[in-house]
Amino acid sequence: MAQHRPFLKPEEVGRSAASAVRGPIEKTGLIRSSVVRMAGYTPGEQPAETGVIKLNTNENPYPPSPLVARALREMDAARLRLYPDPLCKELHRRIAGMHGCSPEQVFIGNGSDEILSLATRAFVEDTGKIGYFVPSYSLYPVLAAARGAASAPVELGPRFEWTMPKGYSSDLFFLANPNAPTGMLFPKNIVKQFCRRHGGVVLIDEAYANFAEEDCMDLAVTLDNVIVSRTLSKAFSLAGLRVGYAVGPRALVEALFKIKDSYNVDALSQRLALAAVSDLAHMRRNARKIAATRRKLSAALAKLKFEVFPSQANFIWTRPSWISACDLFAELRRRKIFVRHFPGPRTGDYLRITIGTDHEVARLVAEIRNIMRGRTA
Amino acid sequence: MAQHRPFLKPEEVGRSAASAVRGPIEKTGLIRSSVVRMAGYTPGEQPAETGVIKLNTNENPYPPSPLVARALREMDAARLRLYPDPLCKELHRRIAGMHGCSPEQVFIGNGSDEILSLATRAFVEDTGKIGYFVPSYSLYPVLAAARGAASAPVELGPRFEWTMPKGYSSDLFFLANPNAPTGMLFPKNIVKQFCRRHGGVVLIDEAYANFAEEDCMDLAVTLDNVIVSRTLSKAFSLAGLRVGYAVGPRALVEALFKIKDSYNVDALSQRLALAAVSDLAHMRRNARKIAATRRKLSAALAKLKFEVFPSQANFIWTRPSWISACDLFAELRRRKIFVRHFPGPRTGDYLRITIGTDHEVARLVAEIRNIMRGRTA
Repeated sequence: MAQHRPFLKPEEVGRSAASAVRGPIEKTGLIRSSVVRMAGYTPGEQPAETGVIKLNTNENPYPPSPLVARALREMDAARLRLYPDPLCKELHRRIAGMHGCSPEQVFIGNGSDEILSLATRAFVEDTGKIGYFVPSYSLYPVLAAARGAASAPVELGPRFEWTMPKGYSSDLFFLANPNAPTGMLFPKNIVKQFCRRHGGVVLIDEAYANFAEEDCMDLAVTLDNVIVSRTLSKAFSLAGLRVGYAVGPRALVEALFKIKDSYNVDALSQRLALAAVSDLAHMRRNARKIAATRRKLSAALAKLKFEVFPSQANFIWTRPSWISACDLFAELRRRKIFVRHFPGPRTGDYLRITIGTDHEVARLVAEIRNIMRGRTA
Repeated sequence: MAQHRPFLKPEEVGRSAASAVRGPIEKTGLIRSSVVRMAGYTPGEQPAETGVIKLNTNENPYPPSPLVARALREMDAARLRLYPDPLCKELHRRIAGMHGCSPEQVFIGNGSDEILSLATRAFVEDTGKIGYFVPSYSLYPVLAAARGAASAPVELGPRFEWTMPKGYSSDLFFLANPNAPTGMLFPKNIVKQFCRRHGGVVLIDEAYANFAEEDCMDLAVTLDNVIVSRTLSKAFSLAGLRVGYAVGPRALVEALFKIKDSYNVDALSQRLALAAVSDLAHMRRNARKIAATRRKLSAALAKLKFEVFPSQANFIWTRPSWISACDLFAELRRRKIFVRHFPGPRTGDYLRITIGTDHEVARLVAEIRNIMRGRTA
């Protein structure tokens, strides 16, 4: 009869972690050289402390739709023994309907991050180039390095406005719109012109488009080199769920499909995502509240002598004039208010502040006022 | 004031799906040539019909631990607005404790499929080779193609036993043990010898190890080129959840970490997986039940003149002698019993049958007997 020893007990392993690193024959060069060279991505801090005002990772301050809570309560744990639908058919159809395209033009990912990563492998040859603005979402250069492909970064103008060198080319261009961390929206006519001229794929990362006045979704169904990605993490209040999607030409969507993990979106995520996109009214209401708070915070910061950039996202990009961004970050952190600071030549003088509730933002403004008093007294 | 139009209405998009495929300027070569050439992976069928006996995708016939159901009931949908822990710290610690290694030797993935895919990108240069047995898990050649790397397949012997050509080399070798679809366990001393001699990384895919008499987990903490991957999909009855993990040398684990999506495991999956691995007794009980049913089914099939291979997994690899595998597959399907048939020279004469409950397996045997009577009458 089979004896079951599903797991070794610690004493069976019989080696300390310290001695485990080296085997009997030393092997070299096990790790791909581009991976050895690269640094990983640093996500925003997820504090373990309680009582923190968390304005550092662009999460939505409001809970997801009550339909999500209901779907969660109705989930049957026993069903989890079965594989999820590898094609996410129901969610697919719903998202296609939402955007007026066919399901074959929709791709669903384990967060939109997975979609960005798949794009680097579907649309870029080993000798190809991956483009993105600087500054923009700091994951893009990490993805290019992980792909082992060359980067073709484009420096934004001094006010973080659109610039594009003549004759610029790349195999895949990541275009965050609204841009992060600046929150600024690139005008649609410029984006469209760029897409029409660009020889490679343009992936318009619309993680924040639900907070903006316009979006480029129609380019994904009219141009053959444009994919638009969205996420349920921000406007739909589901960062914990990891569901993103993309819309694009069938041929490009099919390429993503070929190389995705078979069951990339789990059963719970599929079901809860379906509930979330079935309540667009809830999402829009929250997006409007956040836009209203964004206006209040922008005005308050301007009064406190901050340079404030016009945001179309759920965060604000701002430069304090009477304190360094780095010091203000640290002062706020001490007061248990977390915002985001990106060190570096282009971003080091600025802070990115996520829009919280009115109450959280009022606390932030009050604390900044206190810090200012302490400094200027 | 910002006007919110989070989604385009169908009439705003204003183009039919048919006209959407082509943009104004035709672009060529948008898709990576290796992706154009490759075919995607075909997962086992997930039937929509009811009343099906589903013995085709190696799912566990028993529900997960009651602790999983409880954790699910206790989940708060409102918390999903926050990002999950990118490091899965709690789950990490628990799994490390389970295997007597340090958390730095543990990697957690969105299913073990994600870990296999990451390994092709972390341990293989663009000009490298990826090895695996034939037949084995049919995903491996797909992963090699998706990586754009050369394959270095190794044909198993005529009885699906271990063979390895002299001087064989690869940068990454996927070694499923027990093997799929044969269910056969490669002896540990042979595996160990191979790992010590192999110049590249060996990823021992132990998806089915919880059903087997021995495993190779200790090699992952004693050799510097061995990673062992496990999944919660089979023995833990959580295929719907997508959680897998790997144990290996710190340097290799760190490489996987560098290139993973920041938040690759969602908050619900982390929490429910923690509940599952906190109840090893439940998992082991089910694994024992499945092994007992496996013995019964093996004996019954042998009586019905099937060749039955010695299985150490939750499925059986078997060859009918009085009907072709393809025909039997179709006959069973008509009777709403789904098993798996892999067409092809090495596998086309066989069926892979997942071990269900005693009741399901009795139904299967009864139906095979009926089919046999109809054929031989």
